[in-house]
Amino acid sequence: MAVYNKKFMKRALELAKKADGRVQPNPYVGAVVVKDNKIIGEGYHKKFGGKHAEPIAIDNAGESCEGADLYVNLEPCSHMGKTPPCVDKIIRKKIKRVFIGISDPHKNVKGDGILKLKQAGIDVYVNILREKAIEINRKFLTHLEKKRPYILLKYAMTLDGYIATVSGDSQWISNEKCRRIVHQKRHNYQGILVGSSTVLYDNPRLSARNREKGFQPKPYILDMVGEIDNLDYNVFNRKAVLITPSDIYDERGMVKIYRFDKKKDDLKDFILEVFEKGKLHSLMIEGGAKTLSFFMENGLFDEVNVFISPKFIGEGVNPLKFNGIYKIKDAIEMKNIEHKSVGEDFMLKGFRENVYWID
Amino acid sequence: MAVYNKKFMKRALELAKKADGRVQPNPYVGAVVVKDNKIIGEGYHKKFGGKHAEPIAIDNAGESCEGADLYVNLEPCSHMGKTPPCVDKIIRKKIKRVFIGISDPHKNVKGDGILKLKQAGIDVYVNILREKAIEINRKFLTHLEKKRPYILLKYAMTLDGYIATVSGDSQWISNEKCRRIVHQKRHNYQGILVGSSTVLYDNPRLSARNREKGFQPKPYILDMVGEIDNLDYNVFNRKAVLITPSDIYDERGMVKIYRFDKKKDDLKDFILEVFEKGKLHSLMIEGGAKTLSFFMENGLFDEVNVFISPKFIGEGVNPLKFNGIYKIKDAIEMKNIEHKSVGEDFMLKGFRENVYWID
Repeated sequence: MAVYNKKFMKRALELAKKADGRVQPNPYVGAVVVKDNKIIGEGYHKKFGGKHAEPIAIDNAGESCEGADLYVNLEPCSHMGKTPPCVDKIIRKKIKRVFIGISDPHKNVKGDGILKLKQAGIDVYVNILREKAIEINRKFLTHLEKKRPYILLKYAMTLDGYIATVSGDSQWISNEKCRRIVHQKRHNYQGILVGSSTVLYDNPRLSARNREKGFQPKPYILDMVGEIDNLDYNVFNRKAVLITPSDIYDERGMVKIYRFDKKKDDLKDFILEVFEKGKLHSLMIEGGAKTLSFFMENGLFDEVNVFISPKFIGEGVNPLKFNGIYKIKDAIEMKNIEHKSVGEDFMLKGFRENVYWID
Repeated sequence: MAVYNKKFMKRALELAKKADGRVQPNPYVGAVVVKDNKIIGEGYHKKFGGKHAEPIAIDNAGESCEGADLYVNLEPCSHMGKTPPCVDKIIRKKIKRVFIGISDPHKNVKGDGILKLKQAGIDVYVNILREKAIEINRKFLTHLEKKRPYILLKYAMTLDGYIATVSGDSQWISNEKCRRIVHQKRHNYQGILVGSSTVLYDNPRLSARNREKGFQPKPYILDMVGEIDNLDYNVFNRKAVLITPSDIYDERGMVKIYRFDKKKDDLKDFILEVFEKGKLHSLMIEGGAKTLSFFMENGLFDEVNVFISPKFIGEGVNPLKFNGIYKIKDAIEMKNIEHKSVGEDFMLKGFRENVYWID
């Protein structure tokens, strides 16, 4: 392994992260050009369809890139997409060594970028800060590996484990700071899904309200029983998706309706097809209990975010209710846990798997 | 207010805390003697019935205490108890100024210590680091104010809000580190109470197993229905208390049985009387759901400790189940929240009131 400097890859990752909420479903990519141990050019993939990180960093360099090192968290592309192949530019500009976080498992790249660089005589090193590189592109990698969106299950509960009172009230269990975190997260997901009961009870907008110009997730409404009988709810005020067995119809054409047959269709398969049709790479599920339970029971989740507020209501709706596990030792255990205090409330983030992608 | 140095009171509090698990039901008291801005003597009340902090600190001083300052977190006693009055010694040794955390609301002191010191010409200052001084003696002060033990409700739950599976299994929801914390806490409570179901299901010992020679809490078993029909369970292997409507009898005499009449007795009043008879100043309640709910519903609690483990079981026993609160805004909110990561588990500590004692 050649001598390399971690701090340059860290900088590339830091740059990549700047596209938060603007680049989906594309991966986060940042790049830095280094000469004589100094950064001479920086760049990151700013938004879906836009210029890639590598050419931005190269163009940003104030001097010739000949003989320089390039650090990039994901393998450079070698195919003509919305922009020309990055490897061509790297070769043309006579970069000497390329340090890569992880290779790109996308069918259009898959090691081809690395191969072309090597064929051009460039020294290529892969798996630099590999774990961080995987972490930053969890959503992108999960979709490639699992052929379904990266799924986050989110809920807020009381200290006695309820997400709503017996009367269905849930506004607000968590404090304002927590709710701001949720809005921030929404900017980073292509879709937000809730069950029909949540629509009927809370009539939420499901929009991301932290940044006016930030990415807005598309609402997905899962109505397992067909109880939504009109489209006058807030979520239907913009382009939305409704999955239902009912023959409801949208006159205005804002809502794409996917009808399933309760007797014939397997709901899990049906939903996954809807997601694929919508090219959905990331989905945040915000409840209610029946919906969260359906996804957890079917193994359709990658991350959980639970907000816990130090209050008691004595009775109410449990966040999850599926066929109970009999022994604690058989419980579904979350991994890579992160804890965070949010005022007096508390947030727990957990992942289903330790490593999200293995090449 | 005279010039004083916070660090000396902090040291007194630090010393006081050393008696953790050995001094109950007495208060935690630490004292330092200061001369020329240097500590010349230190002491703390080490165990119930033993010498008080002030005379220990004075005797510990390597030189004369004449003209010195004394820092002590609780008002010195003025009555003859198990040991002679502390104020007499302070006066005799010609201490010049006394800095006190809080005055002692105990009927045998109640300002009388301060008065005697002042009458002897000593400068006395009260309410130094008052909040810390209250905090360290929450149990002692709560018992004095509320005429019942300081009550801690403790449980461990899954991330979906269950304290046991549908089959009743709860071993172990929380990790080993959390369980060690619980054992450490047990040393600091005079009593541990569980419901009869916990005895029947888990057959716990309820002993504190961190320090062999540490204080052992007395088990209190609350059997609301009279379902415990023999005394062969582990908790009854040492002196214990059983509250039951059944006419069960202990031949060996290890278990003190308090019988209530389901039709005539008010259970809350009955239990409080049992606590007073046992001179119980601090009680930790470890479940199950019915028992925790009874105490919360009746307002009989001062602190909650909840251990949350990042696992899911889908169905099970809720930690609390009492007549539900209809609106989130009416929830019972905990105060002075503390969060603590314990490995991947998480501990939340909360208090019922912001201030525990007001003089």
